[in-house]
Amino acid sequence: MDFLYEAIAEDFERLEEVLADAFRVEGDLMGEVADYVAAGRGKRLRPAVVCLAARACGYDPAGDHHILLGAAVELFHVATLLHDDVIDRAPLRRGRQTVNARWGDDVAILFADYLYATSFDLALSTLEPATVRMLSRATQQMTQGEFLQVERRGQWLSEADYMEIITKKTAVLFSAAASLGALVGGAPAQTVLRFGQYGLDFGLAFQITDDTLDYEAQTDRWGKRVGSDLAEGKQTLPLLRTLAVATEEDRATLVRVLENGRDFATVHSYVARYGGIGHSLDRAGDHCRSALGALDDVGLVNEPMNLLRQIADRVLVRTH
Amino acid sequence: MDFLYEAIAEDFERLEEVLADAFRVEGDLMGEVADYVAAGRGKRLRPAVVCLAARACGYDPAGDHHILLGAAVELFHVATLLHDDVIDRAPLRRGRQTVNARWGDDVAILFADYLYATSFDLALSTLEPATVRMLSRATQQMTQGEFLQVERRGQWLSEADYMEIITKKTAVLFSAAASLGALVGGAPAQTVLRFGQYGLDFGLAFQITDDTLDYEAQTDRWGKRVGSDLAEGKQTLPLLRTLAVATEEDRATLVRVLENGRDFATVHSYVARYGGIGHSLDRAGDHCRSALGALDDVGLVNEPMNLLRQIADRVLVRTH
Repeated sequence: MDFLYEAIAEDFERLEEVLADAFRVEGDLMGEVADYVAAGRGKRLRPAVVCLAARACGYDPAGDHHILLGAAVELFHVATLLHDDVIDRAPLRRGRQTVNARWGDDVAILFADYLYATSFDLALSTLEPATVRMLSRATQQMTQGEFLQVERRGQWLSEADYMEIITKKTAVLFSAAASLGALVGGAPAQTVLRFGQYGLDFGLAFQITDDTLDYEAQTDRWGKRVGSDLAEGKQTLPLLRTLAVATEEDRATLVRVLENGRDFATVHSYVARYGGIGHSLDRAGDHCRSALGALDDVGLVNEPMNLLRQIADRVLVRTH
Repeated sequence: MDFLYEAIAEDFERLEEVLADAFRVEGDLMGEVADYVAAGRGKRLRPAVVCLAARACGYDPAGDHHILLGAAVELFHVATLLHDDVIDRAPLRRGRQTVNARWGDDVAILFADYLYATSFDLALSTLEPATVRMLSRATQQMTQGEFLQVERRGQWLSEADYMEIITKKTAVLFSAAASLGALVGGAPAQTVLRFGQYGLDFGLAFQITDDTLDYEAQTDRWGKRVGSDLAEGKQTLPLLRTLAVATEEDRATLVRVLENGRDFATVHSYVARYGGIGHSLDRAGDHCRSALGALDDVGLVNEPMNLLRQIADRVLVRTH
């Protein structure tokens, strides 16, 4: 995705400054945690979507609201990851110790709270209540998604549960990112909604693809280790589809395998036999096309629009 | 404090409706947790301060911003208690099982996140970014206070640490409550600041008094069980003062008692001998007087101002 970061290099330079500033905190322990979390940075895909949507809608090049909102969305995302890791009792994230594993659950919870507050504070700098409301609504939906996950623990999810969970946990924030960009870009309400739809579908395609590549018997180009979701007990679409369509006998055998060590090769053979991977990639493809369709409806023609199309295309390419 | 609730009964009727609505949530598990948390309601002191400050500043009787902000502050307070109980691994709160003890840390963390988001959402309904900013700044300070507490775990706090912790964990939210009321009441900036000072000093007096009454060898009129903070290992002002002024020998003996079962009668005898209770109540009294002084500076004369004075007086009465 280098093409993307090159195209918005100036915005991202300012974004990194705002983020560095947000991670500059009082207190020895808090400072240590902040430095550690800041060093574990991700791909910044959500702020990229904010910046591109703002640029696509013709936001004032000298303005900084898209930067502030991009930083707000990124901090918000990092905060949810910190809470997720506490809830999942995860020891590692992106190959590094999690904050909960290193400093304890209390520190992880508190630092996430701090980041949530800082995220809202950055959004408030735009002095537009609508922007903060998008974040607060996204939080509500994300916690509802996590609740559903906790509620279904120890059961097999339905495909509908899976879709509801990834919608609330992932897609809603991408949707907020795209809407926020359009909003600061001064787009009319109908256009903001279309960008929101783009973000939602893009987020779904992104998550389904990510979950599906975990079953691909080759190293994914984004460097994810195959089989790691299964090893962590995550129930994702390829497996859930397989459980839904397998014969009663195969389902029973597969469930036994899953309950006894989850041997990846065996699980993979069932998922492959029942077309779980193909089905999932088809669903991801559907959402990519919907995302692109939402952009078509917007009817703007410019370079940032092309880039928004390209990142959706890129997810689609991963699916073939 | 019945006089207080009678005086603002109409506001509180609307407040309870807004809160009941906020606790009406989607999902079976989330709904169950919400009902349980709603049933464990506290004294609603923070929304009372919001309402009184708004009324004192002449806020439109037909308006509802003070109600929305009162509810926002209360939900925010409840959310921090949920996180506090996870961090302290507390089994009980107000005589009932905590959410973490009953449903697990994950559920408590998530439901608190939901309440934080709902709190911000309610504040946003006023369409005044300044109100939400007060909440986001309060969150940042509260997490900093909790961080300091975690950082000092296993050490004896200094009086300065104690003051910093209760300022950030308790007083800042009372300060936000009073400022928010004045802000929606249309008060000039200088008056908003004075109300903020009132809230800060009132919050400090309130917390010090509460902490000190835990050492009083009689049942407090607010129904708190004597010695319960000490039993939970909480380091509060009467004890910290005693440790600071005791002879080296007495300090060593007291520390041994504290490290071996914390026998209340023995600890109490040291605290009494070194005037730890009197010193603390004097500090609380100082802050009550500062709170009242801040109201004097405001220069308004009306019934809500009298009530704000009375609740500060009431804390002062507890100290004598």
